[in-house]
Amino acid sequence: MEKQGKIVIIGGVAAGPKAAARARRLMPDAKITVIEQGELISYGSCGIPLYLAGMLPDIESLMTTAAGLKRNVEFFLKEKNVSVLTKTRASFIDREKKEVVVSCLDKKKEERIPYDRLVLAVGANPIIPDVPGIDLKGVTVLHHPGQAQFIRTSLKDGVKKITIIGGGAIGVEVAASLVGRDREIILVEKADQLMPGVFDPEIAALIKQELEDNGVTVLTGEGLKTLKGDSQNNVKRFTTVKGIYETEMVILACGVRPNVELARECGLAIGETGAIKVNQYLQTSDPAIYAGGDCVENIHLVTGRPVYVPLASTSNKHGRVIGSNLAGLKETFPGILGTSAIQVGEYNAGKTGLTEKEAVKLGYPVVTTIVSGHDTAHYHPMHGKGIVKLIAHKETGRLLGAQVAGMAEVIKRLDVYAVAIQLGADLDQISKFDLGYAPPFATPLDLSIHGANALNNLKQGLVKGISPRELQCMLAEKEDVTLLDVRTRVEAKQRPIKGFVVNIPLSELRERYGELSTKRRIVTVCPLGVRAYEAACFLQGKGYQETFFLQGGISALPGLIDLD
Amino acid sequence: MEKQGKIVIIGGVAAGPKAAARARRLMPDAKITVIEQGELISYGSCGIPLYLAGMLPDIESLMTTAAGLKRNVEFFLKEKNVSVLTKTRASFIDREKKEVVVSCLDKKKEERIPYDRLVLAVGANPIIPDVPGIDLKGVTVLHHPGQAQFIRTSLKDGVKKITIIGGGAIGVEVAASLVGRDREIILVEKADQLMPGVFDPEIAALIKQELEDNGVTVLTGEGLKTLKGDSQNNVKRFTTVKGIYETEMVILACGVRPNVELARECGLAIGETGAIKVNQYLQTSDPAIYAGGDCVENIHLVTGRPVYVPLASTSNKHGRVIGSNLAGLKETFPGILGTSAIQVGEYNAGKTGLTEKEAVKLGYPVVTTIVSGHDTAHYHPMHGKGIVKLIAHKETGRLLGAQVAGMAEVIKRLDVYAVAIQLGADLDQISKFDLGYAPPFATPLDLSIHGANALNNLKQGLVKGISPRELQCMLAEKEDVTLLDVRTRVEAKQRPIKGFVVNIPLSELRERYGELSTKRRIVTVCPLGVRAYEAACFLQGKGYQETFFLQGGISALPGLIDLD
Repeated sequence: MEKQGKIVIIGGVAAGPKAAARARRLMPDAKITVIEQGELISYGSCGIPLYLAGMLPDIESLMTTAAGLKRNVEFFLKEKNVSVLTKTRASFIDREKKEVVVSCLDKKKEERIPYDRLVLAVGANPIIPDVPGIDLKGVTVLHHPGQAQFIRTSLKDGVKKITIIGGGAIGVEVAASLVGRDREIILVEKADQLMPGVFDPEIAALIKQELEDNGVTVLTGEGLKTLKGDSQNNVKRFTTVKGIYETEMVILACGVRPNVELARECGLAIGETGAIKVNQYLQTSDPAIYAGGDCVENIHLVTGRPVYVPLASTSNKHGRVIGSNLAGLKETFPGILGTSAIQVGEYNAGKTGLTEKEAVKLGYPVVTTIVSGHDTAHYHPMHGKGIVKLIAHKETGRLLGAQVAGMAEVIKRLDVYAVAIQLGADLDQISKFDLGYAPPFATPLDLSIHGANALNNLKQGLVKGISPRELQCMLAEKEDVTLLDVRTRVEAKQRPIKGFVVNIPLSELRERYGELSTKRRIVTVCPLGVRAYEAACFLQGKGYQETFFLQGGISALPGLIDLD
Repeated sequence: MEKQGKIVIIGGVAAGPKAAARARRLMPDAKITVIEQGELISYGSCGIPLYLAGMLPDIESLMTTAAGLKRNVEFFLKEKNVSVLTKTRASFIDREKKEVVVSCLDKKKEERIPYDRLVLAVGANPIIPDVPGIDLKGVTVLHHPGQAQFIRTSLKDGVKKITIIGGGAIGVEVAASLVGRDREIILVEKADQLMPGVFDPEIAALIKQELEDNGVTVLTGEGLKTLKGDSQNNVKRFTTVKGIYETEMVILACGVRPNVELARECGLAIGETGAIKVNQYLQTSDPAIYAGGDCVENIHLVTGRPVYVPLASTSNKHGRVIGSNLAGLKETFPGILGTSAIQVGEYNAGKTGLTEKEAVKLGYPVVTTIVSGHDTAHYHPMHGKGIVKLIAHKETGRLLGAQVAGMAEVIKRLDVYAVAIQLGADLDQISKFDLGYAPPFATPLDLSIHGANALNNLKQGLVKGISPRELQCMLAEKEDVTLLDVRTRVEAKQRPIKGFVVNIPLSELRERYGELSTKRRIVTVCPLGVRAYEAACFLQGKGYQETFFLQGGISALPGLIDLD
């Protein structure tokens, strides 16, 4: 293992400081320098929505360690013996001489810093939509703590009408964090659903519903066209392909692009996704230069193909692997699943692996299901309801992807699926996972297992199911179908299902099934999908071949009943 | 797939009803009969501690479905077309004639029920210690809802001094559920730690501490010797090997024994653990007879050996597999990890795979570590602190076991480890798990990954660590060691470490390390173990070869500081 050498790291937010800290621990005598063009280093930018929601005492909370120490230049020097040059821009990498040309933004002078090993952790830049009025006052991206402070100050100054452009993870989280206090929040997304790169339409619809329930106006299928200001150049309204809306502030959350200029200029390979290409040791095409974090592409562990999914969790792993390799440990980074999680108020959602849309596009033969269930024993006072969508390979049963949502501990189940996918598990294996059970933590057959069992039933052809989306389409197109509500009479009366429906409680079905025509298509419906599944099994056994149960039940298709 | 036949299931609590329900869905025309000697069926006995704690409206909550339907005889008949005979005892299995001899406890008459396939889901019986006075009034086991109701009634009648015999999962949960309202709770365990079959001593010590902080008197290393009553035969005191204690009620939680009488009498094979032996299809030595739940032994997935670990989560999986196989599906049950979870007030703890003690006893070469960390971003207002102990194979790095504890979402991490062990992952693989991150759910490098990284560091010899227990022993034996407190001066002053200690904050260590002797053994200490690790790396780099960091920090050894 190497104990010394000159290490230069460009980028001081996530992967960079992590690499520096790991390298320092392994290389006590190395000279380690971090170059950061901004003023701040090593801050938790993922916590910005919490700051906007007023859940943090101040923005400095995002720049301190768990012990309350400020992660500033002095901290890195004293605690880690790492020199950090802030407000310093790396303008060129001289690979031949092994030197980085930097300019200090204050002193306006250039200097050259020599390296034995170089790390690029230069992150990504927010995408700015190319529309008229983008430079108006009150229009901001949200990428740095300073921009978050600007937004908070504006809110304190009484700004009430806030528009967020971009319905990805950041846009959704920010919209949720700003609701309340008579504010009018509009979220604009040009695709026909929220978070199109992350969720299939069914799950995206639940998140949209949740935002709307919290008072956010969600405009999907509306691309931003122009921004208009008043005489002082303050933003006042915006137009989309569909309409004109008033606003006092516009937050741009249109995604990011990897920062590859430095790499490209010095001739390092750029991958097909447009991000820096690295090998499994996170080395660029120059073995003396490593790269990690939001500026590189990763291998997707399901498809084996390069993808660009910039996430803080990945950046931190990159930093550690790079730190190990700077010391000569030969640690590998295998790739990612694109696992991501968001919180919308108290509603949680997440995704790992491939969506159904992605899997189909890539040519995988798939089976999918949606299930609903509780996150603890249903009699536990703190139980919540979660929705799971699973995508598996039709022939092998291998899990390809999972999506979760609900006012429940669903991210716990997301992690179970993430590990399952990463280790190549199939549905049979998942259904036998020996997970931690006690009534405050799970049901005896955990929701994650329930999902695998339900999908296995469909895969094996034991029962026919219909997805919430398929039912919605059937109803919209007024197809000839009987909705069979198998809830109790009391439940059916309290929250009636809209439209044409027959109510035969499951407990009466074995006596009364003769009332149903064997010729009509039947969709059985209940709150979670469990009784509907039972009813479908029974009816299929009685020769009702065209019987389907609504997967995930009413919980996965809340529009089916009037919630008044 | 078989659609009909005569299915008889003996046992109506967990595995039995599950098998019946699954079989019914697959075999629409089968005649399915469940025989249960008790009055109640399909109840959630794991919820009894919640009932005792007053967290459920009534005991009936444990006997209803999520939709609020009572899971009684009528429910099974109407909803599932399954006949349940309650208060009916199976007294003999006539394997030749394929008949079960049953006696109805009310009618006192015997009859024979024919079967094509039989299922034994007869559960386990509580172990009653063989000590004088065990029949006194006020002494009860806690196995059925009726006994829970008896305890609640006694509490309402003013019983204040309650003793629980047995410090296993049930004993610990019950003790925690009864605290408050001026009650004096004593928990008695004959081993020298709580939950000896589940936790290593370090984690058991944390649970003991938590119980004591909640006002429970925990007597470990004290076996029950006698119970003494008053003139009305009400229990009044008990003696252990160490003392005499007053009590008004004694709850026996001394574990269970598999109910194997029926199986043994009809000649079915009993395994080496004393429970019924089954193959991977959960068939007994008679292929027409299946068995599942608390009456069978399982294969441990790490060791490949039979173990007896009765758990509701396993029972439910068994039931489903048996249901499938009754219909001819040939589903297998691979085995268990003994994953279990408990809640002690708001403190959570759990275990999966092997403990260090078990692994060493079985001859595995192991490396272990303890780490502390947060369950969400540390700046999130709801963050909690979790402790993780990991046991890995010294040569292969394969994870063998994990234990978690803390007032935090640690069971989520337990599940990550459970899946990792079940799928055979090593520490390198775990350290690259792509888990769901956002500040409300995890740290960018999740606690579960942090644990794997920390253990990998030790395994690779990058740093030397010392476990809380080893330090405790060293201090108790007054070994020659310098405790180096690397916290800030403010932290060190606010919560000083007991005994001889040198405080050099990490930020000063690089300048002041010369104050330390290279000849003395040094143990570096901080709250979570992170700064202490950093300090140990630095000192080792400077030639302080006998430097160790305290794994898991003060959080894992709370006795190290005065807490008030």
